[in-house]
Amino acid sequence: METKEYDLIVIGAGPVGENVADRATAGGLRTVIVEEELVGGSCSYWACVPSKALLRPHGVLSEARAVAGAREAAAGDLDIPAVLRRRDAAVGDWDDTGQADWLSSAGIDLVRGHGELIAPRRVRVAAADDTVTLLAARHAVAVCTGSAPRVPAELADIQPWTSRDATSAHELPASLAIVGGGVVACELATAYAGLGVRVTMIVRSGLLGRVEPFAADAVRDGLETLGVDLRLPAAVAEAHRTEKNAVLTLDDGSRVVAEQVLAATGRIPRTSDLGLENVGLVPGDWLAVDDTLRVEGTDWLYAVGDVNHRVLLTHQGKYQGRAAGDVIAARARGGDVDAAPWGAHVATADHAAVPQVVFTEPEVAAVGLTAAQAQDAGHPVRVLDVDLASLAGAAARADDYRGRARAVVDDDRGVLLGATFAGAGVADLLQAATIAVVGEVPLQRLWHAVPSFPTLAEVWLRWLEAYGRESALTTRR
Amino acid sequence: METKEYDLIVIGAGPVGENVADRATAGGLRTVIVEEELVGGSCSYWACVPSKALLRPHGVLSEARAVAGAREAAAGDLDIPAVLRRRDAAVGDWDDTGQADWLSSAGIDLVRGHGELIAPRRVRVAAADDTVTLLAARHAVAVCTGSAPRVPAELADIQPWTSRDATSAHELPASLAIVGGGVVACELATAYAGLGVRVTMIVRSGLLGRVEPFAADAVRDGLETLGVDLRLPAAVAEAHRTEKNAVLTLDDGSRVVAEQVLAATGRIPRTSDLGLENVGLVPGDWLAVDDTLRVEGTDWLYAVGDVNHRVLLTHQGKYQGRAAGDVIAARARGGDVDAAPWGAHVATADHAAVPQVVFTEPEVAAVGLTAAQAQDAGHPVRVLDVDLASLAGAAARADDYRGRARAVVDDDRGVLLGATFAGAGVADLLQAATIAVVGEVPLQRLWHAVPSFPTLAEVWLRWLEAYGRESALTTRR
Repeated sequence: METKEYDLIVIGAGPVGENVADRATAGGLRTVIVEEELVGGSCSYWACVPSKALLRPHGVLSEARAVAGAREAAAGDLDIPAVLRRRDAAVGDWDDTGQADWLSSAGIDLVRGHGELIAPRRVRVAAADDTVTLLAARHAVAVCTGSAPRVPAELADIQPWTSRDATSAHELPASLAIVGGGVVACELATAYAGLGVRVTMIVRSGLLGRVEPFAADAVRDGLETLGVDLRLPAAVAEAHRTEKNAVLTLDDGSRVVAEQVLAATGRIPRTSDLGLENVGLVPGDWLAVDDTLRVEGTDWLYAVGDVNHRVLLTHQGKYQGRAAGDVIAARARGGDVDAAPWGAHVATADHAAVPQVVFTEPEVAAVGLTAAQAQDAGHPVRVLDVDLASLAGAAARADDYRGRARAVVDDDRGVLLGATFAGAGVADLLQAATIAVVGEVPLQRLWHAVPSFPTLAEVWLRWLEAYGRESALTTRR
Repeated sequence: METKEYDLIVIGAGPVGENVADRATAGGLRTVIVEEELVGGSCSYWACVPSKALLRPHGVLSEARAVAGAREAAAGDLDIPAVLRRRDAAVGDWDDTGQADWLSSAGIDLVRGHGELIAPRRVRVAAADDTVTLLAARHAVAVCTGSAPRVPAELADIQPWTSRDATSAHELPASLAIVGGGVVACELATAYAGLGVRVTMIVRSGLLGRVEPFAADAVRDGLETLGVDLRLPAAVAEAHRTEKNAVLTLDDGSRVVAEQVLAATGRIPRTSDLGLENVGLVPGDWLAVDDTLRVEGTDWLYAVGDVNHRVLLTHQGKYQGRAAGDVIAARARGGDVDAAPWGAHVATADHAAVPQVVFTEPEVAAVGLTAAQAQDAGHPVRVLDVDLASLAGAAARADDYRGRARAVVDDDRGVLLGATFAGAGVADLLQAATIAVVGEVPLQRLWHAVPSFPTLAEVWLRWLEAYGRESALTTRR
């Protein structure tokens, strides 16, 4: 059988693989991308995009209902079929023609089927119709297969929903039990409760483990306001189904009965059937990489996105993908590699400035280090807390606005190490903090970055007031 | 009569005067503030705060109606009395007790009445009850009296509304003719049209003169969508009142009949009755200042906020106020003055990074230089335009989202000079651009400031893609 040769083979055509392929192609490499499901990946069809589509209608209605005068105009019921149709439109009815066309227009070849490494730089692709394609890479192979939901043993027998089912459902259950307390669990609890489903969450140990505690508390309050029944701390001891329902027995002996169960208990790498054993690696493992996204111990294999376990977020995977595509192209042509921190060929932000938005009610947005992380890392930490309700911009936005924002400052260097916001509409406040962290902009300079009145951005002013300004007696002339 | 002596006399207790007084007091100066109306100033009672309160209910309802599923739930009518009550609450029913208490808690004395300079460092305050207080300043006097609406001669006879009346009205006219096309005119046209008033705008030459043309176009489209009748270019030739209405004859001979007329045709300095003639200055003039906000030719007089005509925006006046309060304190104690660009005692951002949000539908947010301004200033300009509708965050936010964003880049230095956004919800995108401009963060570093997916902040990614990344061949190792 003929083997088709390329400079670069990318396995997985989600947003991450698309970015690797796009940058490498722009850098002059002949590139092929292998995909066994839909071009565009989980994010486009079964994760970020449909979950936000399910969240937004209730979210924006809550914003309107928080404003006297508008509240009275927004007192109707959500149109659930319209919400679901809008979600279907957001995922393009699970048709990837447009995305496949984009690959073609970008000069990237597509081979549909399941890709497997059969030797270094060699990939075998088996299509659903049993067609086999053999691919060889002159320079590199990039694994961008992402991650899959982990279904815990105690739920395996009842075949629970995963986030994939919950984001693509066309009929809503009357009741939903969600096992887990991370971002996926909190967002889908918010979405389903907002759509009128009776939601119970069974959470082992605290919501949103890695965010600032005040943000987790705000999400907890928000879920309770939406009527979510929170069982915390609790775990499922046994699960079975009756004709109509699933019955979960918790470790305290109590029971949760729900029409459907969603397992949102973490992710596993999609590496078990990639032929890793044929290139000296262990199937089912996360793939450890250096800051150029190259798998340790190889000079040809890259792992980008969830699969390298650095940061399991689409936007961060895309960021890695841009660096990886560029560095693969640079190495292929024997060019310089810009691998110093914050260089073009490394994913430095993975360590210092990962942004994340949790689209709950209220939203949580965070970047960089939490106070606890900064202290653990040995930074001289100063914490600045602001009650967002004190801002004119909050009062303008909503009656009885509730929210809070924390800045974590390196007190020696006078720069921001991290920031966390919790409150309605804080998602769009995040990029300013990300730029301040990444740009290492001195706080004394930030006094000149005037926030517009009256907007929530005035949180910056409160932070600076709490931090204080260089005294005239001690400053340069 | 006894003269009370202070280190600093501040005339005008709006947000600007409050900031000057607060910083100077924190710097150790005995400070008195003079106010003839309400402590808190126009912004709190007759401008920013009530106008945003009038805008928000319709604005947030429009956001809900842009989302299928929520649209059906938000089909009711705005509750106009509730909107007006909410506006009343936002301005504290025009009672300044809370703000006066804050002054007291900050250790700032308040003298109510009209302040007038009678000699250098000498102020005479005449209260409404004819009480007179004589004040002397050991160090400085700061004029923070702001600006007032300019009523053009052709409207003087019909005594039109000014923004003060429009933001504080308790009964809505059936129809409103607005003369002017600046920020006040556009915001109040949006507010009143949103509240169901039939609005006609008479605009001499283009909306929002100083913003990027595409942003002005977006506001124009938005006003027309709200049903505003735009007469442009047009001017009022003659005006008179009938029993029920005002009748405006335009320069093309056409007529506009409206129950009420709003003059939104610019601002004049509030300096005509300050006794400027007693200190060698001209009453009614704007007060020209240096970057430390000190009036040129004096060593004791400061003019801060609108009255110096640098930037007529509350937040920028507050920013100037912080610098002025600090530098007055520094000079009083013979300390160092930090007057280098971006130092603690100068308002450098007035020249380089003035942010502004126009709360129309859609919103406009801008900072720094427009493309035209950057070219005129001789910068090597590169313009990056992005259609916001192409972002996943836009589709998540609203169906048929329309918006656009422009970055203006100094192509030699590789930094942002300015940015303009037009679209729903762009107000909160602005601070990121402001920090990038003020921090002079290199665009190559901004590749590491990852925007969260799916949010509107991904506009940064599109800008960077349009700008391009340093090639691996040309970069540092």
